[in-house]
Amino acid sequence: MDAIIQKRLGNKELESKVVSADVAAALLSDGDVVGMSGFTRAGDAKVVPMALVERAKNEKFQIDVYTGASLGPEVDKYLAEAGVIRKRGPFQADAGIRNQINAGNVMYVDAHLSHNAELVRQGIIGPIKYAIIEAAAITEDGYIIPTTSVGNSPIFAQYAENIIIELNISHPESLIGIHDIYVPGEQGKRDVIPMTKPNQRLGEIGIKVDPAKIKAIVISEEPDAPSMIVPPDEETQTMANILLDFFRSEIKAGRLTNTLAPIQSGVGSVANAVLDGFADSEFEHLFVYSEVLQDAVFNLIDAGKVDFASAASITLSEELQKRVFGNMEHYADKLCLRPQEISNHPELIRRLGLISINTALELDIYGNVNSTHVSGTKMMNGIGGSGDFARNARLGIFVTKSYAKGGAISSIVPMVSHVDHTEHDVDVIVTEQGIADLRGLAPKERVPLIIENCAHPDYKEQLWDYYNRAVEATGNQQTPHILEEALSWHVNLAKNKTMKKEIAKA
Amino acid sequence: MDAIIQKRLGNKELESKVVSADVAAALLSDGDVVGMSGFTRAGDAKVVPMALVERAKNEKFQIDVYTGASLGPEVDKYLAEAGVIRKRGPFQADAGIRNQINAGNVMYVDAHLSHNAELVRQGIIGPIKYAIIEAAAITEDGYIIPTTSVGNSPIFAQYAENIIIELNISHPESLIGIHDIYVPGEQGKRDVIPMTKPNQRLGEIGIKVDPAKIKAIVISEEPDAPSMIVPPDEETQTMANILLDFFRSEIKAGRLTNTLAPIQSGVGSVANAVLDGFADSEFEHLFVYSEVLQDAVFNLIDAGKVDFASAASITLSEELQKRVFGNMEHYADKLCLRPQEISNHPELIRRLGLISINTALELDIYGNVNSTHVSGTKMMNGIGGSGDFARNARLGIFVTKSYAKGGAISSIVPMVSHVDHTEHDVDVIVTEQGIADLRGLAPKERVPLIIENCAHPDYKEQLWDYYNRAVEATGNQQTPHILEEALSWHVNLAKNKTMKKEIAKA
Repeated sequence: MDAIIQKRLGNKELESKVVSADVAAALLSDGDVVGMSGFTRAGDAKVVPMALVERAKNEKFQIDVYTGASLGPEVDKYLAEAGVIRKRGPFQADAGIRNQINAGNVMYVDAHLSHNAELVRQGIIGPIKYAIIEAAAITEDGYIIPTTSVGNSPIFAQYAENIIIELNISHPESLIGIHDIYVPGEQGKRDVIPMTKPNQRLGEIGIKVDPAKIKAIVISEEPDAPSMIVPPDEETQTMANILLDFFRSEIKAGRLTNTLAPIQSGVGSVANAVLDGFADSEFEHLFVYSEVLQDAVFNLIDAGKVDFASAASITLSEELQKRVFGNMEHYADKLCLRPQEISNHPELIRRLGLISINTALELDIYGNVNSTHVSGTKMMNGIGGSGDFARNARLGIFVTKSYAKGGAISSIVPMVSHVDHTEHDVDVIVTEQGIADLRGLAPKERVPLIIENCAHPDYKEQLWDYYNRAVEATGNQQTPHILEEALSWHVNLAKNKTMKKEIAKA
Repeated sequence: MDAIIQKRLGNKELESKVVSADVAAALLSDGDVVGMSGFTRAGDAKVVPMALVERAKNEKFQIDVYTGASLGPEVDKYLAEAGVIRKRGPFQADAGIRNQINAGNVMYVDAHLSHNAELVRQGIIGPIKYAIIEAAAITEDGYIIPTTSVGNSPIFAQYAENIIIELNISHPESLIGIHDIYVPGEQGKRDVIPMTKPNQRLGEIGIKVDPAKIKAIVISEEPDAPSMIVPPDEETQTMANILLDFFRSEIKAGRLTNTLAPIQSGVGSVANAVLDGFADSEFEHLFVYSEVLQDAVFNLIDAGKVDFASAASITLSEELQKRVFGNMEHYADKLCLRPQEISNHPELIRRLGLISINTALELDIYGNVNSTHVSGTKMMNGIGGSGDFARNARLGIFVTKSYAKGGAISSIVPMVSHVDHTEHDVDVIVTEQGIADLRGLAPKERVPLIIENCAHPDYKEQLWDYYNRAVEATGNQQTPHILEEALSWHVNLAKNKTMKKEIAKA
C-alpha cells in the first residue's frame, strides 16, 4: 500500500477495507437512505457517486440522498441526471438536479440546515443505511477526519448502519486539527452548548465511530469542485459600501463597535462581494461565524481584518483553493469547521449576536422575502441556512440587486410569490439603490423605505400605484393588498416577459 | 396608610411615591415610548391606563405602547379607542384595538414575542420613557414582584428612564416566589442560559430596580380581565383525540415516552381544548413549558397529570381565577413565571425539545401557515410566540378547524394569503378531519396528506382540481401553483361570501 495512504490510514485494521469505488458502490441497494458528507460543494464524496453513475447504466435503482448542503457535480448533476436520486435534502445548487426537481423527477425537501440533524435523531430521516463520508485521514484511535466540510457527517456517521469512507489524499494533511466535532445529545436530555465566543473549541478533532461500521474505504484524489462565484461588480461594490455605511451608523448609535459582531455571510456571489468590501474598511479584529467560508473570508484573513473564522465548510474558487489549501498551516489557527447544527444553531446565533447577510431572490413592499422559488413554483437552490441565521441574528440583513434580466424583473414586488422569511424576520434590506432599515417598523411604515430606498427607479411608480390603490381598497388595513392583483407582476412576466406595465393614471 | 398596602410596600422609602392614578397618568407626555407589563390579559396595569383615557378626553396626546403580549380592555380597547396609542407591539387580541389597527389609526408591529427584549437592548424600541408595571409587592430590598405575568417587564424596567408601579393588592400575596427573573446580558457578551429542565429556577423572585427610577406608585384592586376562552366542543374534542393518538404512535415509533416532552400550547380556545384532552389520557408526569397557562393546565395539575408548568403568564376564566388565585399555595411549587424571552427562547425550546401546539388561521396545500391576517390584509391578533416555538420545537403542530363561517371558508386553501410559518417550519397539521404528518416530506408529498386527511370534504375536490391543474401548468415543478388563481378563493370569498365554486369537470 502507498505510503501516503498508509500514513492517512492510522487505524491499520482498516487497511483490509480498502476497495475500489465500484465495489463500494455495489454495496448500496435500491431504496437505501444515504447520508453523504459535503456542504456547498466542499468535502463531498466524489468517486463512489461516479461509480454509482456507472452502475446505473446497467441497473435501475434509486436512493434517497441527504447531505450537509449542496454537493458538486458528481451527485448533484451526474447522479441526479442518471435518475438514481429519488429524494434529496436539505439543499442543492446545481442546474442538473434543479432540472430534475422541477420536472418532478426528484422529491426535494428544502429545509433549514440546522434542522436535519434533529430529524436524523428522531428517525424521520432514516434509517440511514449508508453514510458516505469523504475523509482526509482516519486516526489510529479511529477518528474520521473530515476534509473541507463537516456538514451533517457526524450525525450521519452516528446513526448510519454502515459507513463508506472516501479517503481523499489530495487534501492537505494539515487539515487535521481544524475541525471541532461536537454533537448535542437527544433533545430534552442534552446539555447547554458551552460556546460564548466564535473561536471556542467544544469537541474533538474528528468523528469517532465504531470501526466495525466502516464497510469500505475508497481512495480518492479528486479535488473539490471549485466554487462558481462571480467577481464583485460595480453594483455589488455599491451594496457593500451601503452596508459599511450602515455599520458606521450603527456604531454611531452605540449599537456596535469597530469590531462589529461575528459575521455570517450566505452562499453566493453577492454575499461574497459584500464581504470583500470590508477589505478596505476601517473595521478590524472581525470574527466570522458562518456556515460557509468563501473567497472573501480568506482575503480578509490575509488583509489582517478577520481574526478568526468558524463555519461548516470552506468553498473556494480554483485560485483560492491553491492559495489556501497549499498553505493551510498559515490559516489553521484562525479557522474552525463545525457540524452544521452548531454553525447554524439558533442557540449560538442568538447568543453570539451575529450580523447575518443573506441573498434574497425577491422581496415585497412589506419585507417578506422569497429565497427559493422563481415565480413561486420553480425551485432555485433552497433556503439553506438563511432562516437559521436571519431569525436569530442581531441583524438579519438581506441583499439583492433591485432588478434582474436586464430590468424585466423587479426584485421588489407587491407580494412575493413564495415566502421563506416572513415580515417578522427581516431587519434590513440592501440593494444597489440603497438600504431599508425595517427594525421596529409596522408594515405600512416599511413601504416607503423599501420602495424609495431599494426599488429600481423603473418600478417605483408602479409599486406606489399598487400600494396606494391597496390602501384605498382595504380601508387602510394592517397590510394592504389587492388579492386579484398581488401576484399579477409574476403573471405579467410569464405572459409578456416583463413585470413592467402601463399604469392607468388616476 | 392601609395595613395591607404597608405590608406589600416593603421598601418604606417608597411610601411617599404613592399617588392617585390621575397624578401618575399626568407624568406621561405626548410622544413617549411606554413599556407596559401584561401578557395575554394577565398582569397588566389597569388604573393608570384608565386615567390616561380620562385625560385624553381633554387633551390630545399619543404614546407608543409595548407590552408582553395582549392586554385587557383598559389598554387594548379603551385607550386604543381614545386615540392615545400611536404604535403598538408586539401582540394584541382585542376587537377594540384591532379595529383601530385595520383602519390605519394604530401602527401595529406584530413580532415574535422573544424578539422584543433584544430590540429594547439595542435601542430600536426606545428610549423607553416610562415602564408601567403591575406589582403584587415591592420587597424591602427593592424587588418588584410581578403579578400574574412577567412578560417583558424586567427588560422594560431595566431600560426605562422612569417606572410607574401599579401595586395591585387584589392579587394574593402567595404570588411572591412563583416568578423566576433571569435576564440575559447583551448579545455577544452573554453567557449560556443554564436551563436543562423546565422546572429549573435560574434567577430571582422579583425585578431588581433602582428605587430612584420609581416615580409613582398607584394602588389598584382591579382583577385581571378573565380569559375569553370558549369551552371545548365536539370538534375540538375530536382534534384532541387525534393528537393523543398521534402521540401514541410517536411512542410506538420510539420517539417519545409516556411522559411525552414539555408541552407548549398557544393562546386560544382550540389549543386549550386540545390540552384538556389529556385529562382522561394515560399520559402522566407531564411538563408544560409554554408562554401562557390557560384553564386546561390547572385542570391537568388538579388531575395529577402535570407535574410542573412554566410560562410567562397565567390567563384564566373567571371560574378558574377563583379556584387558582384563591388557592395559590396549592399550586406554588408546581409553577414558575418567567420573562418571555426565556419562556420563548429558541435556545431553550430546541434544547428542551418541546411539543408545540399552536392555532392556524389558514394553511395551504404545501403546509404554509397564516396565523395573523384575514384574507391577507386584515390583522386578527398577531403571530405571538408561535414562531418562536414552532421552528425550534421537537414537534411544531398547528391546529385549526377545517372550515369557518358555517363552511363558507375553507381553512385549507391553494395558497395562504399571508405567511407567518413557512413550509420549513410546520411539522404536523391537525383538523377535526384528521392529521397530516409533514415531517421530512417534499411539498408535493405533503399535498395528498393535507387534502385527504385535513381538508373539509366540501373542499377536497376543489383543492385537488387546483393542484392537478397546477401540476399540469408548471410541468410538475417543485411547488405547483397557478398564480392567476392562487388567491382566487379569497377573492371569491370577498365577492360571493364563499370559497366554494363550481368546478369545470375535465
